[in-house]
Amino acid sequence: MRSDSLRAVYRLEVGTDRIEARADALRHEQSVEVPPATVRDPFVRKEILPRVESIAPDPHGGHRVTLAFPPAITAHDPAQLLNILFGNAGMLTDVALLDVELPERLARSLGGPRHGSAGLRAQLGVPERPLTCTALKPMGLRPEALAELAGTFARAGLDVIKDDHGLADHSFCPFEERVRRCQRSIEAAADETGRRALYAPNLIGSPVTLKRQLAFALEQGVRAILVAPMLVGLPVFAELAREASDVIWLAHPAFAPVGRVAPAALYGTLFRAYGADAVIFPHAGGRFAAFDAAVCRDLTERLRRPELGLRAALPVPAGGMRVERVEELVRFYGPDVMLLVGGSLHEGEDPLLERSRGFVARVHAAGARAAEASA
Amino acid sequence: MRSDSLRAVYRLEVGTDRIEARADALRHEQSVEVPPATVRDPFVRKEILPRVESIAPDPHGGHRVTLAFPPAITAHDPAQLLNILFGNAGMLTDVALLDVELPERLARSLGGPRHGSAGLRAQLGVPERPLTCTALKPMGLRPEALAELAGTFARAGLDVIKDDHGLADHSFCPFEERVRRCQRSIEAAADETGRRALYAPNLIGSPVTLKRQLAFALEQGVRAILVAPMLVGLPVFAELAREASDVIWLAHPAFAPVGRVAPAALYGTLFRAYGADAVIFPHAGGRFAAFDAAVCRDLTERLRRPELGLRAALPVPAGGMRVERVEELVRFYGPDVMLLVGGSLHEGEDPLLERSRGFVARVHAAGARAAEASA
Repeated sequence: MRSDSLRAVYRLEVGTDRIEARADALRHEQSVEVPPATVRDPFVRKEILPRVESIAPDPHGGHRVTLAFPPAITAHDPAQLLNILFGNAGMLTDVALLDVELPERLARSLGGPRHGSAGLRAQLGVPERPLTCTALKPMGLRPEALAELAGTFARAGLDVIKDDHGLADHSFCPFEERVRRCQRSIEAAADETGRRALYAPNLIGSPVTLKRQLAFALEQGVRAILVAPMLVGLPVFAELAREASDVIWLAHPAFAPVGRVAPAALYGTLFRAYGADAVIFPHAGGRFAAFDAAVCRDLTERLRRPELGLRAALPVPAGGMRVERVEELVRFYGPDVMLLVGGSLHEGEDPLLERSRGFVARVHAAGARAAEASA
Repeated sequence: MRSDSLRAVYRLEVGTDRIEARADALRHEQSVEVPPATVRDPFVRKEILPRVESIAPDPHGGHRVTLAFPPAITAHDPAQLLNILFGNAGMLTDVALLDVELPERLARSLGGPRHGSAGLRAQLGVPERPLTCTALKPMGLRPEALAELAGTFARAGLDVIKDDHGLADHSFCPFEERVRRCQRSIEAAADETGRRALYAPNLIGSPVTLKRQLAFALEQGVRAILVAPMLVGLPVFAELAREASDVIWLAHPAFAPVGRVAPAALYGTLFRAYGADAVIFPHAGGRFAAFDAAVCRDLTERLRRPELGLRAALPVPAGGMRVERVEELVRFYGPDVMLLVGGSLHEGEDPLLERSRGFVARVHAAGARAAEASA
């Protein structure tokens, strides 16, 4: 693996007879966008056009094509990188982006996680065991009700308590009142228990809105933020993570074109490179069928990959996980994980506090067993 | 069609036995994100949860499900609207978003085109005939070479001359030098011919970069801008169009998840509502197979639809169109269209100026014939 090339692997649903022509068309589509015969300038031919590095049959049908791009054509810009990788290809429904390899200089210019798993753990004072996370929901509850939930979760010992990503600046639950009340509620619980959870409010909107929301949250003492990069724009996320580098950034997977872009490439490689400290994604066996064990393993490997000089981001498997699956999840991901259980905590007969304590206890116990087993 | 509901039509690749349960799951997924049994709050049940309005077999397989959302859950925010329409659904690979119907108040709050087709025509002084457009390319040319192309196209009588959307702030072709030279070149041509073309530079980057690029372009006298909303973030595009409302905004279709979101819904309904004055998209028979005649017709109908109090946006069919197809395109779209021909102008034996003049003459003649036929 050369560290100075930008590589992308595509699946083309194209048979053997046409694959060479289509691979050649794709390298033009993703760069110069003119008919091959009209590319006459020697600099363009030599320094701009990507190379077809390999073509091989794909086990799932069609072919895999690897393109090697000159990194300079990305202008080291987060939006132009997406354009080069999948701009016009987004409109070619027989093309999917399977994998991305960033050259080191490009990865460093994007910045990667400013805290990563280690920084989040330092913030929480929890160096090794699996972390616990839940969401404030459902949309429609008033700020007082959400703040009460936040307090309950904090007293139960949850590490990170995030807004549901559907919580916006709603008339029935305004952003500022929600954030103020939830943060205070968590601080009150910390005063009682001596252990401080992190509250991560959800930012959503256009850039001016995001910056106003961020500034307000920071004023209230918030130190972790949830955002869905694909909803606000991945380049916007990169800018937020760069500008507010003292905050822990949790990335939510919503509005991503799964099926057209492989989760490992998008959530694993790109979300991490663009600055996510922790990445939420659906774990296998939940509500999202495209996420099987192999996908979750690949994605996690990319979040943790030591190369490129980027910090490791924390995997946060979610998407309908039940308390009953804690042990299985810790076995699958190992201890460097944050388990996000949402709706499942509201089910059943037990009061929320008891059920949340049960979740926390199971995660701590599973982590302890994993630590013993590996010792 | 009630104007006070937000409706979305989805295709679910689900058979008759499971479709009711999946439709119910989808309305929870796109709003409260908790198991249905845990939705106990009466306000949430009544005012937050979308309704399944209809379920019908889809002629292409599976079923069509229409959800009616309470508009308040969008918070009248451009990012939250995307979240409600296709946030978690983006990760459900058996769900595609086929259509969107905006309630009038939401559409008005998004703003729509500030100029639209009529405003672009007023700017150009061309009230009725089909407009002509081309792109400065390929990526890799120096600013001087692009400016020379711009001058040639302007002298040939092109109406709008846009950057290729792959032109970023490259080391080999910096944004500011490119924009300054191209705008001057077009102005010099206008001094010669007495007819002023519009130059539309491409903005690409994170919000801080976009705003710097926009300010520079405006200083240089630029009055039209190209941007790819999905690359920079659709909510960012909405903010740009709102804040720089004196500029004509051309939207490029790159990085959209075609296959997961129908082009008519995304480019026709949402791009227009978010502020595009003109929308570029691939026409049938070019390089993008998903765009057939029916898709292009639907998309165009949504750009022009008179309801909702939004201005009509101009369709800009493109994607490998050849000069030889001018008459067919004018027949298909009628005269209120802008034909974008790029690479095709560089092909063949004739000098670029002649070939560009030929394109312009064919469009004017086809427009005149269309006007006669309809008189």
